[in-house]
Amino acid sequence: MNDDAMQEIEQSIAHAAEDLAPLYAHGVEDRPDGVMASAPNTDQVIAAQELLITVMLPGRSFEAGRRGHVLSPFFAEKLRSASELLLPEIELALPFQWLGAAARSEGAERQTADRRRSAGIFEQFLQRLPDVRKLVVDDIRAAYNGDPAALSYAEVKLSYPGVLAITSHRLAHELYRLGVPVIPRIMSEHVHGHSGIDIHPGARIGRGFFIDHGTGVVIGETTEIGERVKLYQGVTLGAKSFPLDAEGHPVKHIKRHPTVEDEVVIYANATILGGETVIGARSIVGGNVFLVKSVPPDSLVTRRPGDLSVRTREGDERV
Amino acid sequence: MNDDAMQEIEQSIAHAAEDLAPLYAHGVEDRPDGVMASAPNTDQVIAAQELLITVMLPGRSFEAGRRGHVLSPFFAEKLRSASELLLPEIELALPFQWLGAAARSEGAERQTADRRRSAGIFEQFLQRLPDVRKLVVDDIRAAYNGDPAALSYAEVKLSYPGVLAITSHRLAHELYRLGVPVIPRIMSEHVHGHSGIDIHPGARIGRGFFIDHGTGVVIGETTEIGERVKLYQGVTLGAKSFPLDAEGHPVKHIKRHPTVEDEVVIYANATILGGETVIGARSIVGGNVFLVKSVPPDSLVTRRPGDLSVRTREGDERV
Amino acid sequence: MNDDAMQEIEQSIAHAAEDLAPLYAHGVEDRPDGVMASAPNTDQVIAAQELLITVMLPGRSFEAGRRGHVLSPFFAEKLRSASELLLPEIELALPFQWLGAAARSEGAERQTADRRRSAGIFEQFLQRLPDVRKLVVDDIRAAYNGDPAALSYAEVKLSYPGVLAITSHRLAHELYRLGVPVIPRIMSEHVHGHSGIDIHPGARIGRGFFIDHGTGVVIGETTEIGERVKLYQGVTLGAKSFPLDAEGHPVKHIKRHPTVEDEVVIYANATILGGETVIGARSIVGGNVFLVKSVPPDSLVTRRPGDLSVRTREGDERV
Repeated sequence: MNDDAMQEIEQSIAHAAEDLAPLYAHGVEDRPDGVMASAPNTDQVIAAQELLITVMLPGRSFEAGRRGHVLSPFFAEKLRSASELLLPEIELALPFQWLGAAARSEGAERQTADRRRSAGIFEQFLQRLPDVRKLVVDDIRAAYNGDPAALSYAEVKLSYPGVLAITSHRLAHELYRLGVPVIPRIMSEHVHGHSGIDIHPGARIGRGFFIDHGTGVVIGETTEIGERVKLYQGVTLGAKSFPLDAEGHPVKHIKRHPTVEDEVVIYANATILGGETVIGARSIVGGNVFLVKSVPPDSLVTRRPGDLSVRTREGDERV
Repeated sequence: MNDDAMQEIEQSIAHAAEDLAPLYAHGVEDRPDGVMASAPNTDQVIAAQELLITVMLPGRSFEAGRRGHVLSPFFAEKLRSASELLLPEIELALPFQWLGAAARSEGAERQTADRRRSAGIFEQFLQRLPDVRKLVVDDIRAAYNGDPAALSYAEVKLSYPGVLAITSHRLAHELYRLGVPVIPRIMSEHVHGHSGIDIHPGARIGRGFFIDHGTGVVIGETTEIGERVKLYQGVTLGAKSFPLDAEGHPVKHIKRHPTVEDEVVIYANATILGGETVIGARSIVGGNVFLVKSVPPDSLVTRRPGDLSVRTREGDERV
Repeated sequence: MNDDAMQEIEQSIAHAAEDLAPLYAHGVEDRPDGVMASAPNTDQVIAAQELLITVMLPGRSFEAGRRGHVLSPFFAEKLRSASELLLPEIELALPFQWLGAAARSEGAERQTADRRRSAGIFEQFLQRLPDVRKLVVDDIRAAYNGDPAALSYAEVKLSYPGVLAITSHRLAHELYRLGVPVIPRIMSEHVHGHSGIDIHPGARIGRGFFIDHGTGVVIGETTEIGERVKLYQGVTLGAKSFPLDAEGHPVKHIKRHPTVEDEVVIYANATILGGETVIGARSIVGGNVFLVKSVPPDSLVTRRPGDLSVRTREGDERV
């Protein structure tokens, strides 16, 4: 490019940068003074998340396979790296606690408290890991037994997005329960991006959970799922509408997603909505069903027979 | 591996490479002589795209958060890098303009023209950025107010795929309007890969747009969307069938995707098709609906009550 | 962080690592002694996969575009790198062959056999590549002719996830047919993660196949698809329920996914299930249809007219 064109672009860049700068305090900042606060660094969070997933699911890791029986130092090493990455981010995340309309305290005092609190949270989190691993083992088994195409446990661990998603969810859910803001959502979104499975860290999910294929699955924040439940791709466990407060903002923290009891199976692309919707134990929900009501245990919910029109050369038919 | 086996593989590689070479002019090249033209480098385009998203949405960037109020030099720096990456790619993209059956001029003259044109396009693009940022601010607000699970603006910026997708779309749409071929589609596909949200750069989308969860959303090229519209995951705004020209190729550039007016809400996995389909303002379209007709303003479109069959131990029921 | 807090975390890490170590032989390991076997390294497999995709689809590669007509050395180079990456992984994968309940032979003898077998498999794979490329050419053409939004072949190659997914599938399917375990599934899952399109490597797919948009598409292991078939996003070709063996494990290797004959078009979010379901040639299946029965050639399958309820200010209507 000649110098003139380059210089014009340089000027346009300078103008754009100048015009853009004042557009960054528009009531979409979390600090009342409109300054962008230092939110957690997503790259660090995701790096820690990958290490924690490796510890929960070492069968995904070539390195772990090479170590054979001697996994304890391998775990210690990975957990040490994860703590170095995650601790400062938890500290940065704590000020983003939801306080409704309340203003936040600032300054050095707050920072010291957050530092202490983040260390305490991380310790509790570490203590939960062996129990999380026990859940992951059951989830792997559920995947292997839930899909005729699975020919080895290695295949399940290395290539099942549902196994990855539930493992990551079980970790994120522990951080959510310990009151860490933002970070569990960064984690769930990272796995959502890779697997198409969007499980809010708040969802409570029982043992032996299996999502097959998984793309398009959405499990909302206040969903409760029993044991040995199986979902296929495209299943939504979501909210209907939701109440607004006096200022027109949605009211937070109310139960607005379904309850799914033990041993339910939900087929592809079914949408189930509402905080009062309960799918009774051992029920089967067919594909492409849209359901906003409870059904008792042992129900079979399907699209009504005859709801399709099939036009052929021989004439029309309903199936 | 022993030397014999290795040598056999070497020979197989040489054979395969030789047999493959003549298979690359098969009428799927854009140049009439069957030579592969130098298309834009996707890696460069994506790197530029990430920088531009950071400028539109600095709340996603840890670095920007650290800079606090002094964002103007930060923006200039990112825009400079983006221009270095994107300018040569725009130049490479221009020859891929769709010309129907017309042949393309080649050679040095064309190249000089493309170079000049790409600089002009990029300047106009830079001038549009402050307006794009204003749209992005409204989109962030729409997400925060549209989801009870959103507890801070930081959470929305760092973990909402719908916010990422619409931000990237608003940038790609500017390049599309300025007549840049191929590159806007590389950008939309990059975000599609990460978010599962596929918005064609041609789609015209009003202020305050929010896609929740988003996986499986498809918004076609000639879609028009009003202000304050909200979509959930799996919603398709697509084409029915389309006319073919005399050579059997589809006719390009006709309106074939729906129009969605202001303040419409469309629930999960609804499919709406057709260029003449208009969803009137303030309408609500329920989950899993398949709709190929217009509905007037203030409509509520749902699957018909009673279209589900529920078999329980107590007997059958329709809900 | 002060030293005390750091030391406490160090101790928690050591405890967690110790408690976790014995939790790794829980009947979810493929070796009867509960030791994790060395499964293939997914990073290496994916790197090889990317190289093979580049050879099949050089139009995606900036480097290939620069080489113009002289592609044979380019291919040889990429294939050589792919073989160096993939050969050791095929060798590692072979012991994961599904043997039902049978125990596996171990030791040096087995390893030598696997090494020889993996070289033989890779040679056969290389010989198939020219035929695979011919299929890919037809797939590119099908995409270009199947979407009015496609304005150049470059656009199709650089930004169509369906083209990427079918190219990768045609490669993975060859390895599947040659009896390689696990690796084809790692490949299909890699592309699933990027495109949202989940094609099991076992699926048999005819020439000129096009998936538009693609997010949420699932094509099961025993699916058979004819020539010139077109699918839109969210289409499932899946299994109904499946029989269990005496130990409660699903019976493997039976036909449980649909057959789709030539020139069928299936619109967005349709779910078609069952190993005995045949969609006759030239049929059209509408969006959001749930179908578990065969339909004859030339059928048009849609949701029944009148199955939607539209409530407007003027009253209720069925459409």
